[in-house]
Amino acid sequence: MTELSSSPLYPIANPKSIAVFGASNNVMRMGTIMLTTMVSQGYEGKIYPVHPSEEHVLGLTAYPSVLDLPEVPDLALIILPTDIVCQTMDECGRKGIRHAIVVSGGFRESGSAGAAMQEELERIADQYGIRFLGPNCLGVANLHLKLNPTPIAYEGPAGFVGLASQSGSFVTQMHDYLYRMGLGFSTAFSVGNEANIDIVDCMEYLGACPHTKVIALYIEGIRRGKEFIEAARSIVPHKPIVALYVGGSEAGRRAGLSHTGAIAGPDGVYDGMFRQCGIIRAGTITELFDYCLALGHLPCPLGSRAVIQTHSGGPGATAADSCGRAGLELTELSDDTVEKLKPLIPHTASINNPVDITFSKNPLYDFYQIPDVLLSDENTDILMVYFISPHIFIQPMMERAGVPADEAEEKSREIIEKNCRSFVSLKEKYKKPIVAYTYRSLEEQMVRTLLAGGVPVYNDPDRAARSLAAVLDYYRLRDRISAGGAG
Amino acid sequence: MTELSSSPLYPIANPKSIAVFGASNNVMRMGTIMLTTMVSQGYEGKIYPVHPSEEHVLGLTAYPSVLDLPEVPDLALIILPTDIVCQTMDECGRKGIRHAIVVSGGFRESGSAGAAMQEELERIADQYGIRFLGPNCLGVANLHLKLNPTPIAYEGPAGFVGLASQSGSFVTQMHDYLYRMGLGFSTAFSVGNEANIDIVDCMEYLGACPHTKVIALYIEGIRRGKEFIEAARSIVPHKPIVALYVGGSEAGRRAGLSHTGAIAGPDGVYDGMFRQCGIIRAGTITELFDYCLALGHLPCPLGSRAVIQTHSGGPGATAADSCGRAGLELTELSDDTVEKLKPLIPHTASINNPVDITFSKNPLYDFYQIPDVLLSDENTDILMVYFISPHIFIQPMMERAGVPADEAEEKSREIIEKNCRSFVSLKEKYKKPIVAYTYRSLEEQMVRTLLAGGVPVYNDPDRAARSLAAVLDYYRLRDRISAGGAG
Repeated sequence: MTELSSSPLYPIANPKSIAVFGASNNVMRMGTIMLTTMVSQGYEGKIYPVHPSEEHVLGLTAYPSVLDLPEVPDLALIILPTDIVCQTMDECGRKGIRHAIVVSGGFRESGSAGAAMQEELERIADQYGIRFLGPNCLGVANLHLKLNPTPIAYEGPAGFVGLASQSGSFVTQMHDYLYRMGLGFSTAFSVGNEANIDIVDCMEYLGACPHTKVIALYIEGIRRGKEFIEAARSIVPHKPIVALYVGGSEAGRRAGLSHTGAIAGPDGVYDGMFRQCGIIRAGTITELFDYCLALGHLPCPLGSRAVIQTHSGGPGATAADSCGRAGLELTELSDDTVEKLKPLIPHTASINNPVDITFSKNPLYDFYQIPDVLLSDENTDILMVYFISPHIFIQPMMERAGVPADEAEEKSREIIEKNCRSFVSLKEKYKKPIVAYTYRSLEEQMVRTLLAGGVPVYNDPDRAARSLAAVLDYYRLRDRISAGGAG
Repeated sequence: MTELSSSPLYPIANPKSIAVFGASNNVMRMGTIMLTTMVSQGYEGKIYPVHPSEEHVLGLTAYPSVLDLPEVPDLALIILPTDIVCQTMDECGRKGIRHAIVVSGGFRESGSAGAAMQEELERIADQYGIRFLGPNCLGVANLHLKLNPTPIAYEGPAGFVGLASQSGSFVTQMHDYLYRMGLGFSTAFSVGNEANIDIVDCMEYLGACPHTKVIALYIEGIRRGKEFIEAARSIVPHKPIVALYVGGSEAGRRAGLSHTGAIAGPDGVYDGMFRQCGIIRAGTITELFDYCLALGHLPCPLGSRAVIQTHSGGPGATAADSCGRAGLELTELSDDTVEKLKPLIPHTASINNPVDITFSKNPLYDFYQIPDVLLSDENTDILMVYFISPHIFIQPMMERAGVPADEAEEKSREIIEKNCRSFVSLKEKYKKPIVAYTYRSLEEQMVRTLLAGGVPVYNDPDRAARSLAAVLDYYRLRDRISAGGAG
């Protein structure tokens, strides 16, 4: 396995000092916006804006040339008009800088003149031994270091998803989406035109990165197929990889070509390659991160026999249908389990699978007593639970019973917190995969508590079932690859 | 077409007075919770709680027997223990009540004793000519009348989706989900065991209901196949119907059986039946309402040639891939369109399709000038636009330019509102389907304004593309059915 510190990406993702080219005091410039984000997110290293005329940029001392800097920074971040990028790279080389991110576009993706300019850029980098991300990229966000020199600030804590992306948007524009899902990036790379560093290098870095529990890839086309497969096969035995590949349809292939000049291949070829190296394929961005949520949190299931707990028939039946389509079995509950459930649920409830507890005797049984019984059944490999929000019942009930509104709200929050934590504790107790689904907002307290405790929550049972299938798929492929076979 | 007022569901969905059985002052009882919702939602008709011992229920005058009521109410709402339902129905009949909702469960869905009790209930109803919903259902929510006698209060305004559901949960538990999507129910029916009124009756009512623009069906099994097909074929020429059928997989079939005792059929049979009557099939709850959103808002497309507008390559390529898989074509822009776009976007932008305007010259061009050009192209049948939130740019830019925070926030809100409205105005100008997608929260101002203006917004381009395909599919099937052919 690759050593993290020997990766060309180590100084790029963990720089102690950065020279920034293209930031000014013009608030409409991309360079300025990126520097603003970097400063506002609390990056603790040194920042050296380089600007031909400004003495200060956003309050930081600026330098007329990189050659004037008081030290050799670890990283150059270049956000300049296309035609001065090569010259800047050359100056960086002369200064002794050995790592760069080239954000500027207008290279290979924009035609033959751009392609020639990109060749020149590669030549200059090689001359000095510079390793760089881009051009035509958004670089890196290492959220554990509060390093986010991209146009959009990050909301929420850093997480465990390592992203290597042939689109910068998915590095910068997914933060609040991920936050709502209870996810976050560990480190995310935008590779752009991959002139020098490519997605294989990023995958290797993320494979070795201790903050990364699962790797997400956004792919428009792979250039180094053999190396990609080798890298993936060495990572998959200890860390799952999920990939979204969009070049398989004719429309997706053409869009990728004009975006980063990527050469895509037919869907079937990529499907085969992914299987061969144990990568789980996602069909959409939604699936990409849905699968990451499950793969990052869930233990290896012992089998594919799932139990669905619901208090409503429809959500139970849709979940059963989705499980069936996703290849999960619905387990037959043991007689012992049925006996243990009887005192907990009303006589009109259904003790089949889905277990439909209807309007249960005590709504709080849903969070511990009932799932505890279901998980204790040796035929249960996986538990999937439907939740409506206890919020909408508990507080109004208290108020109807005469508790003042303020107090009812506080008490209700306490009850929900306590019960969600009880539910979460079943994860440790049984070490079986547990997922939840709900149609309530993911921003509600119940969902936030479950997510914080490592229980994936989805807004549709189909997303939950497919994510569980992805987990089963991963462990099957992993075992084959670990045993030395094809995926 | 059915006359609305001649439907047995008319007095059930539009009652002027309701007798409620099963509500008390015990706040934990389902009947009490349902009555509480009904009162809190502002139902303007008369409510008569019937209770053997309480003189008042939730502050309303209660009556010891239905026979004591001062008038004959339009509707009886029965939420009593199973074993006293038949007797209550008989008393309602004696009083002269001719419409009822039986919420109580424990009938056919729970075995042979329950089935016998259900037969007895049907016999009593027939004896008096009572038409009723249920048993084992949650009845009705007619949000245009503020009638919501279900366990969960409704958030947001009434909408245009008419629902007929073999699960009560999808009537009561989807309100805030729909609200976040910019949708709402017109009237929603939970049919339960369909002892007397079934999903076909509900579909006919919703077909005639003037507030309903699109009908959603949740189906575990159809009992009256022939009547279902006839009703659908008479509705589809003037109103789209979307159906989620969960009985097609073995797991879904079994879950439905224990839920409402429904007899499901193989997927292929239902697929054929839906096609034959022009019903669009959804695979999940997410799709069901995604399709409703598009079908309720979008005009008939002239063809399937779509243009994707994006300012980021990745979201553009994923949308292209999704369009390709959903059967949409990506149109070739005319030379004239390309010329008109050039002054609006930077030279590094891509004037292919997807049109990737990158970091555009003026971010506000995204809302009118650019989509206006794209829609004016005669090769454009459909426009699909990717948005990040202007919030995250406009206000910080103003603040960096020295505008005080309060003022910047207000100004920013004004700018966003104005621009989103400009975008919405293109709907009227071109009468072509326009949809948006974003990874931002659907609760943001931008999204709320677009949704309020009738532009569907989705959290994934795949959901947008599939919803557009559902719209194309509907109009194709509609035309065939209107011409008298099979769907």
